[in-house]
Amino acid sequence: MSRATRVIARCTALDRFSASPEHLERVYLSREHAAANAQVAAWMREAGMRTWVDAAGNQYGRVEGREPGLPALLLGSHLDTVPDAGSYDGMLGVLMAIEVVEELGSRIADLPFAVEVVGFSDEEGTRFGKALLGSSAAAGRWDTSWWELTDGTGSTLAEAFTAFGLDPGGVGEAQRRPEELVGYLEAHIEQGPYLEAADRSLGDVTTIAGARRFLLQVTGEARHAGGTPYPRRRDALVGASEAITLIEATARASECVATVGQITVQPGGVNVIPGRADFSLDLRAATDAERDAMWEELDSKIAALCAARGLGYAVTETHRAPAMVCAPWLRACIVEGIAAAGDTEPMELWSRAGHDGMVMGTVTDVAMLFLRCFDGISHHPGEDVREIDVERGLVAFKAAVLAVAERS
Amino acid sequence: MSRATRVIARCTALDRFSASPEHLERVYLSREHAAANAQVAAWMREAGMRTWVDAAGNQYGRVEGREPGLPALLLGSHLDTVPDAGSYDGMLGVLMAIEVVEELGSRIADLPFAVEVVGFSDEEGTRFGKALLGSSAAAGRWDTSWWELTDGTGSTLAEAFTAFGLDPGGVGEAQRRPEELVGYLEAHIEQGPYLEAADRSLGDVTTIAGARRFLLQVTGEARHAGGTPYPRRRDALVGASEAITLIEATARASECVATVGQITVQPGGVNVIPGRADFSLDLRAATDAERDAMWEELDSKIAALCAARGLGYAVTETHRAPAMVCAPWLRACIVEGIAAAGDTEPMELWSRAGHDGMVMGTVTDVAMLFLRCFDGISHHPGEDVREIDVERGLVAFKAAVLAVAERS
Repeated sequence: MSRATRVIARCTALDRFSASPEHLERVYLSREHAAANAQVAAWMREAGMRTWVDAAGNQYGRVEGREPGLPALLLGSHLDTVPDAGSYDGMLGVLMAIEVVEELGSRIADLPFAVEVVGFSDEEGTRFGKALLGSSAAAGRWDTSWWELTDGTGSTLAEAFTAFGLDPGGVGEAQRRPEELVGYLEAHIEQGPYLEAADRSLGDVTTIAGARRFLLQVTGEARHAGGTPYPRRRDALVGASEAITLIEATARASECVATVGQITVQPGGVNVIPGRADFSLDLRAATDAERDAMWEELDSKIAALCAARGLGYAVTETHRAPAMVCAPWLRACIVEGIAAAGDTEPMELWSRAGHDGMVMGTVTDVAMLFLRCFDGISHHPGEDVREIDVERGLVAFKAAVLAVAERS
Repeated sequence: MSRATRVIARCTALDRFSASPEHLERVYLSREHAAANAQVAAWMREAGMRTWVDAAGNQYGRVEGREPGLPALLLGSHLDTVPDAGSYDGMLGVLMAIEVVEELGSRIADLPFAVEVVGFSDEEGTRFGKALLGSSAAAGRWDTSWWELTDGTGSTLAEAFTAFGLDPGGVGEAQRRPEELVGYLEAHIEQGPYLEAADRSLGDVTTIAGARRFLLQVTGEARHAGGTPYPRRRDALVGASEAITLIEATARASECVATVGQITVQPGGVNVIPGRADFSLDLRAATDAERDAMWEELDSKIAALCAARGLGYAVTETHRAPAMVCAPWLRACIVEGIAAAGDTEPMELWSRAGHDGMVMGTVTDVAMLFLRCFDGISHHPGEDVREIDVERGLVAFKAAVLAVAERS
């Protein structure tokens, strides 16, 4: 079995650690999360690493460099998934990192740093509606207000910690300090169509766009569906629907992307006019300025259309991350790596998706290697990568690690 | 206390038979249903009626006409409620009927028919998701598949029957035959704003609209919210939103009402483009022809917009009831009654809401008297009626009964 074949096989082998036998869903602090950590830890140990789970459920492995206790070059990605996920978003980066460590083998003992691999515990934010929890703990950016976040069953994050065997009071121990780290490198599928369109295997990431996320609430009046004529209706769902079509039309005409992924209505009777509609908005652009200008435009347009319909409108910002600029020196290592894999003028891309590197960038330098993925599909069972791209990715990732060593 | 004051006081007195002390909710075959039946039966007996609960939990009272065992003119409405209900939807019609019987007193013994009052046990369908159960039993239209319907706690309708002290096997005994009935008259709050807008107390109902209900499913592709550019998106929620705004605009420009009261999206991640959206549609019009033409128009427009977006579109019809046309001769009695209350050219209205009369119309002739209600509010604690309107309603309802006698 080639190294690339093994990486792909391991990615799909992790599919069995799922909340459902029919589709892949692995959320933070679940039983399947623990099982995936244990499997990944076993592979880490096969690759010669010492392993541990940190105080926030992140799975680590480490091989010492030319002396014990040196700062580490951290390689990794995440092991949690969205509902009905594909096999590669996150997992590929963790398993490529383990493969690179195994391939480097005893050469790591000559490096001027330790090599660590991390499988972050929560990047998607599926369970508690708050993304990047695992890397936030590692970056020492844990917010104590998060303990009260609840999942779909009403369990708080604090309760989920305890149920997983973690101590909420000890989450600070997960924090990595700048002096412990040389940098953070992450390999990830592109989750977009640009590499495929350009017929390239690998890409060099310039920035990771910072999303802003909002919860928008439209309030009207719940009334009888039969007896209430149109002039008396204040239908929260019709207002929300108008807002959702407006959001798409406005963002489509710009360089931003805006997505409404969740909506609920109340009271939710088939014969009752909705009195309230709550929906999410995820907003991204290459720069924070473009993104923020788009939000101002959307916010004022939605406020106007709600006012015209006599509807209430309220907004809560649930997430805001600045764009993360990849470190030039680490990007140079990635570029050197891609050249080793045969592409001497690699394509530059900005990441429209968020990544653990956004948070890790607050503690250490970050760069990312993107791999072409099938049809740009991600967050879907149709997510796929080609073996040739994983092969080239492994060559590039290993060469990048050695390039970091030359520069350290 | 005036008769109208007493009717209103009795309506609000029934509020105490509720599943909750904070709001009114009284569902089929509940403890509070039994208690409300007992209270209503006591008032029926005070009015000189013989009382019984039928094999489906409907509360009856009867006074014989000029000889025992004559066919009955049935007066009534229902005693069950939606969650967080008002005090008048249903109950007002039952208590007005009792008041009319009390006022007619010994005159009933001269009538060419018996007079019966019924408090139907289930009209709203709150508990088992299936409306008009009480009148369906009375009309002999019970469907044995209903026994397996379950409530929110998992109890079947059959189990609820037994717990209430009824025998599921005996439900057929509730059936009323055409030859036992002269007709069915129901007084009910309008549940709409038309009488109030026209400054009228009472209205003559032409038809009870039969709703059609659909479940519409729009399918696209669940993909990553960041990585998927607009030309690659097939966003099911944007398609559904466009459909919902189109439904409102199209129905608003017609004489129909169309309501989307429920929507769900999948997978439902804040950062995932919805791959599927399911939403309900409730469609009503004065005639079945108008309603069906509106559906044809909406269906083809929604199919076209989904096709234009590359989205799948499928429809399931979940409910369909024909409009019930009130019997001209019974409507003439109602009109005569309203004239006796001082309005010689009463307003004609079609009922946008469903009523027990829809089902009773399959066994006997039906007509309805509508009473003005505050701001058109119903299915809400703010539901209210004016004493003057109840006073006029009692005059009209009594006169209508005597008008039936003249025509019989």
